Amino acid sequence: MKIEAFPIQRVSGGECRIATPLAQTTPFTRDDAKVLYDREVSGARIDLESVETIYAFEKAGPREKIFFDPRWCKAAILTAGGLCPGLNNVIKGLTETLKMVYGVPVVYGIPYGYAGLNPACGYSPVILDDLTVDGIHEQGGTILASSRGNQDVLTMLETLIRMDINMLFCIGGDGTLRAAHELAQEIQKRNLNICVIGIPKTIDNDICMIDKTFGFETAVHATNPMITVAHNEAKGAPNGIGLIHVMGRDSGFIAAYSSLANPHVNFCLVPEVKFTLEGQPDSFLPMLHDRLKRRHHAVVIVAEGAGQDLIAGERQVDKSGNLLNNNIGMFLKDQIKDYFKRQNFEVNIKYFDPTYLIRGIPANSSDAVFCLLLAQNAVHAAMSGRTDMLVGHWSDTFTHVPIEMAIRERKKINPKGSLWRCVQLNTRR
Amino acid sequence: MKIEAFPIQRVSGGECRIATPLAQTTPFTRDDAKVLYDREVSGARIDLESVETIYAFEKAGPREKIFFDPRWCKAAILTAGGLCPGLNNVIKGLTETLKMVYGVPVVYGIPYGYAGLNPACGYSPVILDDLTVDGIHEQGGTILASSRGNQDVLTMLETLIRMDINMLFCIGGDGTLRAAHELAQEIQKRNLNICVIGIPKTIDNDICMIDKTFGFETAVHATNPMITVAHNEAKGAPNGIGLIHVMGRDSGFIAAYSSLANPHVNFCLVPEVKFTLEGQPDSFLPMLHDRLKRRHHAVVIVAEGAGQDLIAGERQVDKSGNLLNNNIGMFLKDQIKDYFKRQNFEVNIKYFDPTYLIRGIPANSSDAVFCLLLAQNAVHAAMSGRTDMLVGHWSDTFTHVPIEMAIRERKKINPKGSLWRCVQLNTRR
Amino acid sequence: MKIEAFPIQRVSGGECRIATPLAQTTPFTRDDAKVLYDREVSGARIDLESVETIYAFEKAGPREKIFFDPRWCKAAILTAGGLCPGLNNVIKGLTETLKMVYGVPVVYGIPYGYAGLNPACGYSPVILDDLTVDGIHEQGGTILASSRGNQDVLTMLETLIRMDINMLFCIGGDGTLRAAHELAQEIQKRNLNICVIGIPKTIDNDICMIDKTFGFETAVHATNPMITVAHNEAKGAPNGIGLIHVMGRDSGFIAAYSSLANPHVNFCLVPEVKFTLEGQPDSFLPMLHDRLKRRHHAVVIVAEGAGQDLIAGERQVDKSGNLLNNNIGMFLKDQIKDYFKRQNFEVNIKYFDPTYLIRGIPANSSDAVFCLLLAQNAVHAAMSGRTDMLVGHWSDTFTHVPIEMAIRERKKINPKGSLWRCVQLNTRR
Amino acid sequence: MKIEAFPIQRVSGGECRIATPLAQTTPFTRDDAKVLYDREVSGARIDLESVETIYAFEKAGPREKIFFDPRWCKAAILTAGGLCPGLNNVIKGLTETLKMVYGVPVVYGIPYGYAGLNPACGYSPVILDDLTVDGIHEQGGTILASSRGNQDVLTMLETLIRMDINMLFCIGGDGTLRAAHELAQEIQKRNLNICVIGIPKTIDNDICMIDKTFGFETAVHATNPMITVAHNEAKGAPNGIGLIHVMGRDSGFIAAYSSLANPHVNFCLVPEVKFTLEGQPDSFLPMLHDRLKRRHHAVVIVAEGAGQDLIAGERQVDKSGNLLNNNIGMFLKDQIKDYFKRQNFEVNIKYFDPTYLIRGIPANSSDAVFCLLLAQNAVHAAMSGRTDMLVGHWSDTFTHVPIEMAIRERKKINPKGSLWRCVQLNTRR
Repeated sequence: MKIEAFPIQRVSGGECRIATPLAQTTPFTRDDAKVLYDREVSGARIDLESVETIYAFEKAGPREKIFFDPRWCKAAILTAGGLCPGLNNVIKGLTETLKMVYGVPVVYGIPYGYAGLNPACGYSPVILDDLTVDGIHEQGGTILASSRGNQDVLTMLETLIRMDINMLFCIGGDGTLRAAHELAQEIQKRNLNICVIGIPKTIDNDICMIDKTFGFETAVHATNPMITVAHNEAKGAPNGIGLIHVMGRDSGFIAAYSSLANPHVNFCLVPEVKFTLEGQPDSFLPMLHDRLKRRHHAVVIVAEGAGQDLIAGERQVDKSGNLLNNNIGMFLKDQIKDYFKRQNFEVNIKYFDPTYLIRGIPANSSDAVFCLLLAQNAVHAAMSGRTDMLVGHWSDTFTHVPIEMAIRERKKINPKGSLWRCVQLNTRR
Repeated sequence: MKIEAFPIQRVSGGECRIATPLAQTTPFTRDDAKVLYDREVSGARIDLESVETIYAFEKAGPREKIFFDPRWCKAAILTAGGLCPGLNNVIKGLTETLKMVYGVPVVYGIPYGYAGLNPACGYSPVILDDLTVDGIHEQGGTILASSRGNQDVLTMLETLIRMDINMLFCIGGDGTLRAAHELAQEIQKRNLNICVIGIPKTIDNDICMIDKTFGFETAVHATNPMITVAHNEAKGAPNGIGLIHVMGRDSGFIAAYSSLANPHVNFCLVPEVKFTLEGQPDSFLPMLHDRLKRRHHAVVIVAEGAGQDLIAGERQVDKSGNLLNNNIGMFLKDQIKDYFKRQNFEVNIKYFDPTYLIRGIPANSSDAVFCLLLAQNAVHAAMSGRTDMLVGHWSDTFTHVPIEMAIRERKKINPKGSLWRCVQLNTRR
Repeated sequence: MKIEAFPIQRVSGGECRIATPLAQTTPFTRDDAKVLYDREVSGARIDLESVETIYAFEKAGPREKIFFDPRWCKAAILTAGGLCPGLNNVIKGLTETLKMVYGVPVVYGIPYGYAGLNPACGYSPVILDDLTVDGIHEQGGTILASSRGNQDVLTMLETLIRMDINMLFCIGGDGTLRAAHELAQEIQKRNLNICVIGIPKTIDNDICMIDKTFGFETAVHATNPMITVAHNEAKGAPNGIGLIHVMGRDSGFIAAYSSLANPHVNFCLVPEVKFTLEGQPDSFLPMLHDRLKRRHHAVVIVAEGAGQDLIAGERQVDKSGNLLNNNIGMFLKDQIKDYFKRQNFEVNIKYFDPTYLIRGIPANSSDAVFCLLLAQNAVHAAMSGRTDMLVGHWSDTFTHVPIEMAIRERKKINPKGSLWRCVQLNTRR
Repeated sequence: MKIEAFPIQRVSGGECRIATPLAQTTPFTRDDAKVLYDREVSGARIDLESVETIYAFEKAGPREKIFFDPRWCKAAILTAGGLCPGLNNVIKGLTETLKMVYGVPVVYGIPYGYAGLNPACGYSPVILDDLTVDGIHEQGGTILASSRGNQDVLTMLETLIRMDINMLFCIGGDGTLRAAHELAQEIQKRNLNICVIGIPKTIDNDICMIDKTFGFETAVHATNPMITVAHNEAKGAPNGIGLIHVMGRDSGFIAAYSSLANPHVNFCLVPEVKFTLEGQPDSFLPMLHDRLKRRHHAVVIVAEGAGQDLIAGERQVDKSGNLLNNNIGMFLKDQIKDYFKRQNFEVNIKYFDPTYLIRGIPANSSDAVFCLLLAQNAVHAAMSGRTDMLVGHWSDTFTHVPIEMAIRERKKINPKGSLWRCVQLNTRR
């Protein structure tokens, strides 16, 4: 039986001969430190004796010997895709760790995502330093601005080479990471000493092999008072219904955690769990009817990707290649109105769509800490010559994850798992 | 020259012979205390010598002699129309002043507005006391629930008589106050000793003869961070536009004050000031285009009643008889998209509609204080036998206002006044 | 009978011959527009016929003709004394109105208050423009920094002359305004064309002839949730007492309004109303004892200047010449402990001192609007050549107030007025 | 090699024969499911082959067969020790899971902690149901009230027996858990079918074998804006110092995480890392001096247990037997003043003590979710007859932890671990 870490690419083979500028008293992380992938065992499921390989992640952290000489480094940071709470914290954390901890002389901010690496788009990089990033942890949005859509890999690589950049930090979601992976592969093919490190950004918390992503807790936290407001509206009118439409394209984590955080929610609808509107004993509309007859008010939260099979009509694709959902919120609002009209039962629906209101805000404290540690570990990884990886989090520890593994599929709520069980125990009244 | 107060009705003529239970050391308000309607003068405009009558409001406050004997009173409170921050503060203030300051033995809460006074609707009143209202000042919504639409005056009056209620406090807007006025008139016609006091509620701050209404400041305060989020979204994408649709059916006070409170707003569109989309030098779309070319991002705030003349199609009427606006927010979003497509100019619009999110929240501190003082003064007015009036606020003082005067027309932004001047000075960049 | 405005000084007599750069459509304020000082009348108190003079404030606002040519102006802004919510809003409002509305080419920020005008202190002025002040309205504190204590008038005047500054905006309290007055007097004596405009800053809201000062509402708003926390602590332990010590050196407005805003307060102690600890039927400690016996928890709020006569020991003086209070909060805590020990009655006291926590925060929306309008009107006043005045607020209108009138004495709660009456009605349970 | 779970006590041996009332589709947790104690391995540190035993926690969750018949259960809940954000969430979660998920007919709330189980204290239990706990998740404090200090084990046991209570949930810290352990031991000795389940409460996050405790994240979140205020005060005055004293009797987690969450912190002082005031090259005061000379402002955060060796004088003990710290915050303030006076260097210190302000507030969303899941799992554990244990959290999973293991020592920051490394990398400027 052996413990095997998911393999991480290194530029030029990645032998580390440079002494880190960090103090010798720093508790360095050994290269063979690993975080187990399976954290639970049960007598029935795993017989350790007979298992040949236990999988693990490389543990993130500062190495005693590094690959790059920081004094000769030029780093670049970009943010791509939609806004997410914590982007500025990551930018600040990267900049300060690069400049103040390692002494990297030049850190570029690439504006408007990958478009900033395409000279045809006409954007100029900005120089990031401690003044530029002072206080930005208290601002929502991204000081670098962002854009959707990919750029040609070779064009971007030429820019990196022309500007002599040897570390690129890409903060973004699925699409961003896919492009980072392609760029890193091209670099490795040419054997260039440029590392590409991803910092996964998805407010939906739907990236595989990573137990949480930054911004998600803030999003849930910001949704919380809106649920109370929806509850107040519902209680304030005869048979009031507060209907809240939240983000969650493929995964319903925001809806599910918001339901746990604020028990005013009575119905939680997510993409992972199919439901019918009418016709079954547990169909949504008759259950809502039943609740209203008993309690006279109800709060419903629905993730944008839920119930897409119920809506007729084709779905469109956005610039980043994401399949767009039809608006389940507005659809449900109409269905509810129609159903109760047929039942001749007065209801008062109030519709909430807080989408943008929960992503352009500053990170809350948990996310702020998380973003800082992601950033520190991303810099440590880059310094050690790692590439084509992202910084993950598993079992309360920061990890190195091959980009390819993380983007293979999306993380989803397991309808037979404990999260969904808790939601059900908490909302079925 | 004489100073004349707007006349306030009193039940049975309203002679006050009962000694108030308030301590003798209380600074009582004299019946002839008045608050001047005109607070400004200028040499050119007003020649005091030649003016025959200066108008004034009766000043609100506790009277040394009162009309009703509190120990024999039964009071009732109702909330009608849409939610507004501070409803629970007013309910708590009324209840505590009635019971603990004056010693009124019974205070009813009438559920679901005027519907609660119509037996056919099947609602039962609740008894309000210090336990029922403990801590409700920290909750949004209304513990009494509300409804729209009027009920038959005679039916309501029968209920008041049957339940032996001699003070009715109606918290609501235009429609609510109109019904309160009709009820009060019918009562006066029959010479009954029942007083009807209105507490004006309009989140739009659009009631005449009253310089501010409760909930308005909270609404502006809650809109403030959303403007910053819209600004973050606008800055975060190429030529980003944050478009915010706020309440303001006939009056744009929320939009105007929000623009002053958060100078990230670049364009403020209100019902009182007409605008064109294209074709004029100062049309909205070319000005937005110009701003984007100069600064690459913009924030637009639009009140729901703005630009209704630009939208084709008939307008509907709600249950309270209010003329409903067509959705100018969605209309503008489409017009902006269409215009820039024609200009072949990439823009990224993010649309915000915080409507319900700013009315179901708890009152902020200013509004909390204001609600309490409205409530105390409403009770003082009722105790002195006044009726068919509402408690207003003028020149930093609480006043008595005949309901009829307040509902005659809506308060609006004066496009030639100082408020709009300040908005213009602050947004024209 | 005549209406007479409190007289405002003007530089060089102040004849205004320059056409304002503001659009001709601006609703300009006439020089003879006035705001009446007395806003209430009662038959008994005032006989208009026999009154010879009615006093009034000059109304603030933009004038059609101005004294200074904005293109030749150099303005300077300074903040002095302690922090107060809204300082940055005023700085931003002044800077933007000067530069963008009037086109003033140079606006200096003077660092560390008056010390910044004394070359011996070694501070350099900063140039303020739209970039410097972008987004500062969302930050607490002051970007200019502040200091206490005065500097020599002649030294400061020399600096103004040397730097060719012809408009000085001084944002500060009592001490700051006194120094501004002395400076303005010296300037007038020498007949120089330099105007000095004060923007009154006192979180205690204790400046005369002005109905509210910026930062005060924010301070009350920030105190509100702390009262709820104190209430939670009080309810959470046997005979719990939440004791909150708030600012209010000479005037108890913060304590009083906080009590109205959050009715969890049971006892409100202010400098204006003397109280005894023991020995009288209405002494504080036995009344607290009584409350605990009845309800088992209590919240007490005490302003720092309250009960100073109860504390033995001399009081010190700070750098700005303010008489420092002995710590009544800690004193009361000890007295309460001691009293209940003597009564052999277990109590649990939790002590809160939020002083600094409520003054270094950003302005809330009401204060943000208020600060902006103060700033706009301060610039209008300076442009018209007015000096030795501050911008005030009276009856919902902005006014010009001679500095000397405002600093003559402090505004205090009238123990026989309606504010204190409302507090008493609301806290005596 | 075998995997061994830390052993959990069960009442009467704990054989589970009753079918749970939960739906058969619930994903039940097997009794042999375990969560590994060691989640990281490194080639050097652990040689799996040679290890004889790998330790693990029992995994928490609902069991398919349970010990108690819910229909015959009487449960009781108590909160003891100081306030902590989330207490009401746990109470609500326990009540709702007991009553609505399992159908337990009677749930008592025991007032004022263990005192409520001692008849001599004279408190009466309250009945908890869905109405009692409705909305309490939005309130700080504890609706059950709390007290410090222990009661006689036999007296408490008699009360449990007399009231026929067979499940006791004790929410509290160290002292509370110790008493719960003694009570459970006595019960086991007598072979009674009463289970005692602990829910660990420590705002300091200092309980062993548990990676986080509820309320801690909220406390860090609430400290965050205060750091910004302290920073504003520090920047606002010449050589300003914001000194913040936070909770952390033995462990500096709040101080450390707050420093990571808000990088305005320049010095973080915790109990686990000794420091000197003067005399060493890295002594605190000269380093602060150096910072002020370079940047003119500084923020210092100090945990209450830090630097106790520097303060002369004996330490006292509170009612719960905790060794009280001398006030390091006030001590440091005096030392700083004194040092800079000696250096003849003007500084302006602003002192913040937010202690109570961060513990009587409602839980933030992360903590709200965490509290609910703790509560659900506590009820699952009780139903399966487990006792003398608490619900813990490890590697993102809920666990069963023997109370004795958890209270053996306190969890502390490892000065050579990664948390402290990150703090140092982030604050040393």
